[in-house]
Amino acid sequence: MVKKMPVFTIDFQPVGRRGQCPGNESFLDCARRVGIGISNVCGGGGTCGTCKVQVLVGTVSEPTPGELDALSPHELNEGWRLACQTYPTSDCTLHVPPESMTTPQRTQVEGLEIAVTPEPPLQSFNVQLSTPSLSDLQADADRLLQALNQQHRLKCKSFDIHVLQDISNLLRSHEWQCYATVRNNEVVALVPPSNRQLGLAVDLGTTKIAGYLIDLNSGKTLAARGIMNPQISYGEDVISRINNANNSQKNSMRLQQVLIKALNELIVDLSSEIGVSKTDIVEMVVVGNTAMHHLFLGLAVKQLAVTPFVPAVNSSLDVKAHEPGLNIAPGAYVYLPPNIAGFVGGDHVAMLLAAGVSEAEGPVITLDIGTNTEVSLVYKGEITSVSCASGPVFEGGHIKDGMRAASGAIERVRITGEKIQLETIDDTPATGICGSGILDAMAQLYLNGIINEAGKMNTDHPRSSTHNKQPCFVLVSKKERGGRPGIIVTQKDIRELQLGKAAIRTGIQSLLETNGCCEEDIKQVIIAGAFGSYIDISSAITIGMLPSLPLDRFKQVGNAAGMGARMALISRTKRNEARGIAKRVRYLELAGTPGFMDTFVAANYIGQYRITGGERQEID
Amino acid sequence: MVKKMPVFTIDFQPVGRRGQCPGNESFLDCARRVGIGISNVCGGGGTCGTCKVQVLVGTVSEPTPGELDALSPHELNEGWRLACQTYPTSDCTLHVPPESMTTPQRTQVEGLEIAVTPEPPLQSFNVQLSTPSLSDLQADADRLLQALNQQHRLKCKSFDIHVLQDISNLLRSHEWQCYATVRNNEVVALVPPSNRQLGLAVDLGTTKIAGYLIDLNSGKTLAARGIMNPQISYGEDVISRINNANNSQKNSMRLQQVLIKALNELIVDLSSEIGVSKTDIVEMVVVGNTAMHHLFLGLAVKQLAVTPFVPAVNSSLDVKAHEPGLNIAPGAYVYLPPNIAGFVGGDHVAMLLAAGVSEAEGPVITLDIGTNTEVSLVYKGEITSVSCASGPVFEGGHIKDGMRAASGAIERVRITGEKIQLETIDDTPATGICGSGILDAMAQLYLNGIINEAGKMNTDHPRSSTHNKQPCFVLVSKKERGGRPGIIVTQKDIRELQLGKAAIRTGIQSLLETNGCCEEDIKQVIIAGAFGSYIDISSAITIGMLPSLPLDRFKQVGNAAGMGARMALISRTKRNEARGIAKRVRYLELAGTPGFMDTFVAANYIGQYRITGGERQEID
Repeated sequence: MVKKMPVFTIDFQPVGRRGQCPGNESFLDCARRVGIGISNVCGGGGTCGTCKVQVLVGTVSEPTPGELDALSPHELNEGWRLACQTYPTSDCTLHVPPESMTTPQRTQVEGLEIAVTPEPPLQSFNVQLSTPSLSDLQADADRLLQALNQQHRLKCKSFDIHVLQDISNLLRSHEWQCYATVRNNEVVALVPPSNRQLGLAVDLGTTKIAGYLIDLNSGKTLAARGIMNPQISYGEDVISRINNANNSQKNSMRLQQVLIKALNELIVDLSSEIGVSKTDIVEMVVVGNTAMHHLFLGLAVKQLAVTPFVPAVNSSLDVKAHEPGLNIAPGAYVYLPPNIAGFVGGDHVAMLLAAGVSEAEGPVITLDIGTNTEVSLVYKGEITSVSCASGPVFEGGHIKDGMRAASGAIERVRITGEKIQLETIDDTPATGICGSGILDAMAQLYLNGIINEAGKMNTDHPRSSTHNKQPCFVLVSKKERGGRPGIIVTQKDIRELQLGKAAIRTGIQSLLETNGCCEEDIKQVIIAGAFGSYIDISSAITIGMLPSLPLDRFKQVGNAAGMGARMALISRTKRNEARGIAKRVRYLELAGTPGFMDTFVAANYIGQYRITGGERQEID
Repeated sequence: MVKKMPVFTIDFQPVGRRGQCPGNESFLDCARRVGIGISNVCGGGGTCGTCKVQVLVGTVSEPTPGELDALSPHELNEGWRLACQTYPTSDCTLHVPPESMTTPQRTQVEGLEIAVTPEPPLQSFNVQLSTPSLSDLQADADRLLQALNQQHRLKCKSFDIHVLQDISNLLRSHEWQCYATVRNNEVVALVPPSNRQLGLAVDLGTTKIAGYLIDLNSGKTLAARGIMNPQISYGEDVISRINNANNSQKNSMRLQQVLIKALNELIVDLSSEIGVSKTDIVEMVVVGNTAMHHLFLGLAVKQLAVTPFVPAVNSSLDVKAHEPGLNIAPGAYVYLPPNIAGFVGGDHVAMLLAAGVSEAEGPVITLDIGTNTEVSLVYKGEITSVSCASGPVFEGGHIKDGMRAASGAIERVRITGEKIQLETIDDTPATGICGSGILDAMAQLYLNGIINEAGKMNTDHPRSSTHNKQPCFVLVSKKERGGRPGIIVTQKDIRELQLGKAAIRTGIQSLLETNGCCEEDIKQVIIAGAFGSYIDISSAITIGMLPSLPLDRFKQVGNAAGMGARMALISRTKRNEARGIAKRVRYLELAGTPGFMDTFVAANYIGQYRITGGERQEID
C-alpha cells in the first residue's frame, strides 16, 4: 500500500500569496510553482544562502548540513531556513524578506503634491562661541545659550540630555563652532557646522509603510521609499494584530520591535541614498491608523478591539524619537497628529489635511480604502467620519488566488464575449489577483451576466468551471500557465468582495443620511490610499461600491496620508490645521446608526440602487 | 639556592586599605593579616563561596576546581574569584563587595535637620473618570485631562509616554479610578488609587552615596541609607576617575553603569524597607560634585581635567529618571541643582542651601572637606567659592596605614609623654588610620615635639622607629597587634597631610584676601561632609588647617549636601533659592589668584601663622 503524500497550505508573507505544497516539495519548489520569485543563485543547491525565509507558523523538516553551515544557531532558533532545503510537515506561514525576493513589492510613495510654504517647527543656526579661559569660565551649554541669544535672539532654556552628553567634545573639536537645532526653546540637536535640516515623514500603513526624507527648509522631498509593514507576519489586518498583541506582553513588544527595526532600516536606506547621516534627521512625523499609532508607541491596544473602541489617546503627541527606539538625531522628536477614534486615526486626519477639505463647503466625500476604510463627509464646514470594516479583500486577502499588488498580480480584467483580456503588474506572467483586479473581475462578470445582482455565479461561460463543487470563473487556465495551477475567481471570492464593497457603500450612505444629503449633491469624491489609486472607478460604480456620479467628480489622490504627513512635517500652520480638523470631526459609530443593517444588506447587491433608508430601488 | 618568594601590594577597595601579600598567601590570608574582615563561613575551604572578590587590576593564580564550581564563566570572565583560593602573581587591586565584608563601612546619612514647608513640584490627585460608551467616545488620556481640569482645576497638557502606555489597562482594571501625578502640566505618573507621593534625595559623593526616601507631602524622611560609590574601583579620586572615563567610550559608559546599578539597588533597598514599590517614587534630586554630576548623566568629563576646567553645563537640569537608567516611576524626573564650576558642583550649592547662608551678612566660611574641598566665603550678601585639591589623605588615601572610616579605623589619638591613647571606630581592634585619626596624630606629634613646624620628624620618642630608612611613629606595635604588622605614621604620611591641610588653608586665606576680610572677623565656620563631622576642631587648629578662632564659632553640620538635596526635593522655593545661590556665587580659580604659591608654601608649615600675602608670621 502506497501512503499518500500529504499536501499542506503554505502562506507566503508579506506578498500574501498562498499555495499548496506536498510534503516532498521544498518551499522553493512550491514558490516556483505558485509563481513567487524567491532568489536562488545556486539553483536550489543549498549553497548560496540567498533563499532565506523565516518559518513563522508550522512545522518543517530538520535542518540539513548545508543549512547548519549557512545559518547561525540564533537564526535557526528564530525560524530562519533555506527555502530550497526545507520541506513542510504541516501548514506553514513563511516570512519572505525583501532580500530573498527576486522582484520588489509595489509600495506606494507617490501621491498628490501640494506646495506648502515651509515653516518648520525647528530653527537651525551656525553659531560661533567664544573660547573659555581662566577669566571666562562659563560652562559649555550656558555659553551656547548665550551665543544663541546674542547672535540669533533665541531664548532657549533647555537641552536634550544627548546634546549635553556630546556638547563638550563637539565644541572642542570644531573650534567652538556648531550647528544648533532649536525646537520650542529646547536645543534638540548639535552637530559640526552645517546647513542641513532634514525631516522624515512616515505613513505607517497596516500593510505598507511609505517614508519621505525632506529638506525642512525648502520642503523638497529628497528621497522616498516604500517598504512592507513587517508586522504583517503577525496578523494581516488590524484586528488580528491587536489580538496578537493582547496574547502576551512579549508579543506586544515584538510587534513594536519589528516595526521599529524596519523603520530604522528605512532611515538608513533613505539617508544613504542621498549621502547624509541618519542623525541629520532632526524631526519626524508619523501618521497611521489608531492601532498602528498605538503599536508604534507601545501603547495598550486591547481596548481598541472592544466596544466602544476607545483609543488610549487622541491628542497630537510630541515624543522623543529615541523613546520607541528610532535612530535619528538622538534629541529629535516625532510628531503624531491627533487620532479621531479607535478606527479613524491620524492618517485620516493627514489625508483630510492633504485633500484641503477644511475650506470646502461640500458635500465632499473622502475615502481612504484599505482593510479598514475611513470615509468622511465634509458639508457646510462640518466633517463627519465613519470607519468601515472593508476587510482584507482589497489587499488580495480572503481571495483564493488573491495577492498583494506585486509583480505578476492581475490588476485589470476585460471580458468580451468568450474572450478575456488581462493586465498584470510589470506585465509579467500572472501569479494571482490583487484588489483592483478582483474588483474589475466582479464588474466584468456582472456586465457579462456571469454573476447576477445577488452575486450568484452561473456556469454558462466557456471559462466557467467549478471549484469545491461551487461555480468559478477561470481567468488563467492551467494550460495557459504551462501546467501551473490556474488562476480563478470563485463564488466565495465574489461573496467576500460583496461584503467589502457593501461596507464602504454603507459608510457613504450613512454619512449622507445623517447629514441630510443626497448622492446627486456630492461635488467631489476624493479617493486616497494605495488601492484606491489603482482601481477602475467605472468598475467600482458598476458593482455599486461607489455612487453613480459623473466620472469627473472622482479624484484619485494616491497616498494623501503621506502627503499630509509631509505637510505637517514642514509646517507649523499645517499642524495647527490638522489639530483643527480633528477637533471639527464628528465620529459616527456605524454600528450605532439607525437602519445600519438594512443599508448594509441592500448594499450587498451588485449594481446601482437607491438604498436610502435601507429600501433598495434599482436606478438606471 | 632558594628562590625568594615575591611580595606584592594588595589594594582592598572600597575600604581603601593596602597590605603586603607574599605569592604563597591567599587574598583571604592577606586580608586577615591586615585586619580586613572578609566573610568566610567555611573557614577558607573554598566551598562556601562567601569570600567573593573581584580582581580589578593585576594577575593572579588560575581558578581552582572549587572556584570553577562556585563561580559562573561570566563571573570568572569579569574577574570574580574566591579570596581563599586565589594567590597574587603581581600587585593587585581588589573590589570587596559589601556582601563579602563582615562589617559595614561607615557611611553618612546623618546631618543637620531643617524644617522646610513642603511645596513639592508635583501635585497628585485621586481622580474618578466617567466610563466611555458609544455615546461618549473620548479617548482615555483626553478623558483624564478633562477630569483633572473639572475636579482639580488643573490645566494639564501632556503625558509622559510611559503613562500613555499604561493608561488604558490601568483605568479599565480599577473602575476608571486612578491616582495621577502632575508636574509642570505633564502627567508623569499614573497608578491605582493611592495617597502616596514619594521622592528620593541622593547625595552622590566621590566616595559615599547617601539616599533619603521622603514623603513629599509631609517632608518626612521615611528611610535613609548610605552606600559606597562603586566607581571607587575605577579611581579613588575625581581626577583618576575622569582619566579612566577618558581612556575609552567603554570605560566612560561603565562608570555610569556601575553607578546607576548601585543607585537602583539603593532604590530597591529603601523602598523595601518601608514596604512601598520603587515606582511610587515620582521625583528625585541628585546632588554631587561636577564630575559626579557629569558621570551620572553620561556627559563628557574630559574638559573637567584640562584648564580652564569648564563643565558641560552649569544650569539646573530636569532629566527623565529613566534616561540614565533609574528604575523609579517611569515618567519621573530627576532634578539636579546648578553647578558652579568644574570643581564646585551642585552638592556645594545644596550645602550652601542647607547652611542657610543666603541670608547671612557674614563673613561666614563654609567648608565641604573631601578629596576636593570646596570653600565659600559669604560676605555682604556675596558668595565667593574656591575648590582646593586637598587630595585623598582625609579619606585615608596616600597614607601608609590609611583606610576609610570603617570598623577598626583609628579616629582619635592622644599622646601624653610616653603614653598613647587611641580610639577606633566601633571600638574594635585597630586596623588602620582614617582621616580624623591622622589629623589628630599630626597635632599630637607636633604638640609633643616629635615633628617640628616644618613637619620634620625626629626619633626621640620611645615609640619612634624607622620605615624605609625614614623616621616613623608607631601607633600600634607588631607586638600590640599580636604579631600582625604594626600601624605607624611615617614621615611621608606627614608630608601628604601637610599638602592636604595647606590646600584647605590656602583656599580660606585666598577667599579672605580677595574679599578684604581678616581671619578675626569670621563670624562662623560651617564644616560639612563626612570627614568634617568627625574631626577634632582643636587638632585642626593646632596644625593650622583651620584659622585660630574661638571653638564656638565652628559648626559641624554633617551631610549638609544631603540635607540641601532633601530641601530641594520637597520645596519649589528651595529650588529657586538654590538657583539664586548659584547665580550669586563668584568662582575663584585658586591657581589664578595672586600670591597663591607663596600662601600655599607658608600654609605647609604646622602651627598657626599669619600667612597674609604669603608672608609667614608666627602668632600666639
